[in-house]
Amino acid sequence: VKVAIQGERGSFSHQAALELVPRAQVVACARSVEVFDAVDSGRTAAAVIPVENTLAGPVGEHLDLLCERDVFIYGERHLRIEHNLIAVPNGQSKKMQLKAIRQVLSHPVALDQCRNFFRRHRGVASVGFYDTAGAVKYVMANKLADAAAIASRQAAREYGGRILIAGIEDDRQNFTRFFLIKRKGRLPRALRNGKTSLVFSVQNVPGALFKALSVFALRDLDLSKIESRPVRGKPWEYMFFVDVLHGHDEVMDLALAHLKEVAGFVKLLGVYPRGK
Amino acid sequence: VKVAIQGERGSFSHQAALELVPRAQVVACARSVEVFDAVDSGRTAAAVIPVENTLAGPVGEHLDLLCERDVFIYGERHLRIEHNLIAVPNGQSKKMQLKAIRQVLSHPVALDQCRNFFRRHRGVASVGFYDTAGAVKYVMANKLADAAAIASRQAAREYGGRILIAGIEDDRQNFTRFFLIKRKGRLPRALRNGKTSLVFSVQNVPGALFKALSVFALRDLDLSKIESRPVRGKPWEYMFFVDVLHGHDEVMDLALAHLKEVAGFVKLLGVYPRGK
Repeated sequence: VKVAIQGERGSFSHQAALELVPRAQVVACARSVEVFDAVDSGRTAAAVIPVENTLAGPVGEHLDLLCERDVFIYGERHLRIEHNLIAVPNGQSKKMQLKAIRQVLSHPVALDQCRNFFRRHRGVASVGFYDTAGAVKYVMANKLADAAAIASRQAAREYGGRILIAGIEDDRQNFTRFFLIKRKGRLPRALRNGKTSLVFSVQNVPGALFKALSVFALRDLDLSKIESRPVRGKPWEYMFFVDVLHGHDEVMDLALAHLKEVAGFVKLLGVYPRGK
Repeated sequence: VKVAIQGERGSFSHQAALELVPRAQVVACARSVEVFDAVDSGRTAAAVIPVENTLAGPVGEHLDLLCERDVFIYGERHLRIEHNLIAVPNGQSKKMQLKAIRQVLSHPVALDQCRNFFRRHRGVASVGFYDTAGAVKYVMANKLADAAAIASRQAAREYGGRILIAGIEDDRQNFTRFFLIKRKGRLPRALRNGKTSLVFSVQNVPGALFKALSVFALRDLDLSKIESRPVRGKPWEYMFFVDVLHGHDEVMDLALAHLKEVAGFVKLLGVYPRGK
């Protein structure tokens, strides 16, 4: 099964794709729009995209694309972000090899999440790179002896790198949530542990958001998440992305119909089993 | 009056600082924490920070710092983001000079907001830089003849650059909202066109957010904005940042007391006149 991801092979998206679709044949795309194009055009059967990180917050661009494009969410996965120090295998002991490292390459967000490592290794410079897995690819391709990269285990596997230190992230409570998206087909039947994602806008009148949320509260439908996003071309107006801890059934249909009464725009984004 | 900003002199923050504090003596800080430190320690009387952009969304790091640090919002300002193509003055006509430009440096977000320019000028490469104003500084310092930078008018003024083309951004509906922050002092008296910013967390029970918002809806207090942010160390729990179109008075005091009944944590972030 072909699954599109944004970024290099060996990225956290690659790892999430393999967990959501065990036999996934990953298609790496440089930009997020290309990932959505791949699904839209049928070039890949699915895509796996990050939508939220517990330290950094939402991935706004992906929320916007979910709203704009004709795709549907069929699954979610929460991946713990483990950062590893990865170098070119050279036969030495890990301790010896670590002593020779003078610079560490990775995406600036990843570097920032490993501050304790750089505090303990004062002589090591951190160098910003466009992608975590791309940094491993670069260190391996150029056989750099004095450099290492910070990336996922999947990146080490992908490019044959050696993990010198595993889990060098400062905060272990670092998770990213991924969506599995496909072209919209049939709605899944009521799921016992289902979740529904949707987006809506409200009119610019007092209490409008409160009324929209009452649609769920009055039916005892619990929200696990609400996220606002600015509307392009309409400064200071917002869309609201909501996750409801409930699958698709008659109650949800009634709630959606009620929401359409009070909201300006409503789009059902997905119905899927809750991820671990 | 000393006012701290994040980034180089000539940045959009610099421009916003001058609009909020006309005689501001701007103190440029490399990192956002240093901006808050400057206010905390009294090294500067105030700081001006971006909190939201109408295309890119919220500046999460600044919302987190507003929540953590002992500062208070005393003003806001909405600045239209105008991007300008800036080069080293060389006495030629603008048209002639433009023909010699082979690369344009700027922050990746700014480059991405000027795609039409690069579509019209196929031979010009876009080069990512850490800062918009920093790109102007670099082009000027190195007297680059074949390069230009994309940045604010303030950056051209600051470094003596020449604006070859003004307003090259694709979307004119691009605004950034800035806060003026100071050490917390007295609350301003009820403002006719006042605004109140606060942050709260809710317990993880069904309908908790709905109850929290009822505190305002039941008193006809209008929200202009709600933003969720992940809580560090508590994956999938959120803080909610809310702006209320109402200054500080008895009704607001009652609403805040009511909010404390239903929310786990409440912090008043600021009371200030509504920005234009």
